[in-house]
Amino acid sequence: MPISETWLLPDGVADVLPEQAQVVEALRRKALDFLASRGYQLVYTPFIEYIESLSSLSESNQDLDLATFKVIDQLSGRLLGVRADMTPQVARIDAHVRPVQGIARYCYAGTVLHTKPQGFNTSRAPLQIGAELFGHDSIDADVEMVDVMLNLLATADLIDGVHLDLGHVGLFRSLVKLAGLNKETEHQLSDLYQRKALPELAEFTQSINFGSDFYALGRYSSDLDALQANLSPAVLTDAAFRQALEAVITTHAQIRARWENLDIGIDVVELRSYHYHTGLMYAVYAPNRAAPLAQGGRYDGIGEHFGRARPATGFSCDLYALCAGQFKQVSTVVAPKGIYADLMKAIEQARAQGLSVIQLLGNDDLNSVPYATHQLVQVAGEWTIEKI
Amino acid sequence: MPISETWLLPDGVADVLPEQAQVVEALRRKALDFLASRGYQLVYTPFIEYIESLSSLSESNQDLDLATFKVIDQLSGRLLGVRADMTPQVARIDAHVRPVQGIARYCYAGTVLHTKPQGFNTSRAPLQIGAELFGHDSIDADVEMVDVMLNLLATADLIDGVHLDLGHVGLFRSLVKLAGLNKETEHQLSDLYQRKALPELAEFTQSINFGSDFYALGRYSSDLDALQANLSPAVLTDAAFRQALEAVITTHAQIRARWENLDIGIDVVELRSYHYHTGLMYAVYAPNRAAPLAQGGRYDGIGEHFGRARPATGFSCDLYALCAGQFKQVSTVVAPKGIYADLMKAIEQARAQGLSVIQLLGNDDLNSVPYATHQLVQVAGEWTIEKI
Repeated sequence: MPISETWLLPDGVADVLPEQAQVVEALRRKALDFLASRGYQLVYTPFIEYIESLSSLSESNQDLDLATFKVIDQLSGRLLGVRADMTPQVARIDAHVRPVQGIARYCYAGTVLHTKPQGFNTSRAPLQIGAELFGHDSIDADVEMVDVMLNLLATADLIDGVHLDLGHVGLFRSLVKLAGLNKETEHQLSDLYQRKALPELAEFTQSINFGSDFYALGRYSSDLDALQANLSPAVLTDAAFRQALEAVITTHAQIRARWENLDIGIDVVELRSYHYHTGLMYAVYAPNRAAPLAQGGRYDGIGEHFGRARPATGFSCDLYALCAGQFKQVSTVVAPKGIYADLMKAIEQARAQGLSVIQLLGNDDLNSVPYATHQLVQVAGEWTIEKI
Repeated sequence: MPISETWLLPDGVADVLPEQAQVVEALRRKALDFLASRGYQLVYTPFIEYIESLSSLSESNQDLDLATFKVIDQLSGRLLGVRADMTPQVARIDAHVRPVQGIARYCYAGTVLHTKPQGFNTSRAPLQIGAELFGHDSIDADVEMVDVMLNLLATADLIDGVHLDLGHVGLFRSLVKLAGLNKETEHQLSDLYQRKALPELAEFTQSINFGSDFYALGRYSSDLDALQANLSPAVLTDAAFRQALEAVITTHAQIRARWENLDIGIDVVELRSYHYHTGLMYAVYAPNRAAPLAQGGRYDGIGEHFGRARPATGFSCDLYALCAGQFKQVSTVVAPKGIYADLMKAIEQARAQGLSVIQLLGNDDLNSVPYATHQLVQVAGEWTIEKI
């Protein structure tokens, strides 16, 4: 294989060089410290697991399964998956490994791998950071999670100009149930909503049960007053629909109370991860970026697969994406060779101050370190750091 | 699949729960900060690469190849490897991605995956942390690397009672060349040395060229004076042998000058990673542990595969192994519900002090947080943190 091919990286993976790695590392620490301050306890989850454990989120969660690299375990002969998402792993911990009574809060940060990029121009190896709250099915828990997500972005100085999108799979789902739609019709509708194809939706809904309500849901998806004005009484009095609607209204009000100036939008037919989620869904978008900065939602019942069904809500984001375009110059102080006491002490002190100090090797001079920014020199008997 | 099987993890991988994750995370940060203070610049390397890039260390490095999980890239149809070692990746960066003139120092921390455990009772998914120095073939560079490795262990409070082992593949290798041995005899000898099988070695060396020298190398592998007294003049005057011998003597003296009380041993037939390394090798052992805490060595010429052959030396260790058996209790402060100003301020202050504070949700009381250690209560109008 020619040299030029050897070093090319596969599409969607990249080296992170020092100027950017410093930024990522600093944000990783700030973000985990912030999550810890909110009571989210850090876990490290395994990189590989039996495939049955990783694909626990939903029987119908084919997307995650397709995104998961599979290998054969040479020790057991069983099929392993390389984690494509850490949420099912944390859910496994909550359900089985550490069965806390009451509420459990966990956070994590780690690389996940995807067989194919999950969006336009996205990485196949995001550095996923996220938080999950198990054991509480109240709107309070959803509100806390949205608030934590927003604060995490504030920690990363990424909160200015962002847009928070709130949705809830319960409106569409309860309407489907009420109308008694079959799976195929449900999928077609879900597709029309996601494509925001209103004319097609208008035509399609003419021939189905509760058609005008399905149309209203798409037409007034971001205006709850207009939506309610255009729904039939049977829908508005349906308990499940009512509950979902009120969850969105309450969350909106409570987030507004905490974030006065935030741009908040509602989209009750945002069904991106419809199969995965069971309730409120939330995503934060930055101007000029197609992919959300962070997203999450409620996914009750996840632990069932592991023998303990628990209410759950959580969000995650890609640390690499949060740091995109940010660089920091690496400063390097060069010191002369030698291990005599006053030199060693000067070097020690500079390092203790957080400076990066290297000593020359062999018969080298400064030319051996072309990226050096400072040097340690003796001025009037005192070791001093000077700019180069 | 029954529930009891779903949640079992594959052999050699484990969840790291909060009590231990905190310890690992703290050491990860301390270790990376220490390496940065020594001028080692942080890089994040990709989790997957084309297999040709990952298996660059040596044409004969079959061990690494066997340890690497392989998957098919669905985008290119080519074979990918999940990294089993980060050293070849950092070498690729040095050779190609960031071709620094002069010396380059890099550090890294990340999970690597092994198809099978690489030693008795070792993980298949170690959290590898390490440092590499490229572009200097002097003993000074080796000495710096050993010193950095020892200081890293000191940072982790693991330096007490450890044993440093120094070796050099050049002694055996130059003797093999001098004697003109074929590959098979070389492998047999290497195996006898590693098994410390002196009687067998005595018998085996009777029939080979320079047999008494090969026997002396094994018999006096840890005593350089006795070794020199028992070698034939042809060996002692061989330039390559001489250079290797002096490298060990010099490194020993220079490390002794920096670490007065350290237990240092020499083993010139420690050929553990013989195919990989090209010069000085070093490993640190703790009492009562079979696997070394940290190990490394010189591997000159590694970049050749990528079009730029560079001298290189480096070490690595498993952060999980360094933290084995260490736990830290997680403290959690519980605060009442509400977003009124004085409560929010008290919570904010506690979090800013590094405390982990959660607010009750819904109609919960303290029972919903059975692992809480403290609570925020109002005492005479002041918000106060009390032990539970």
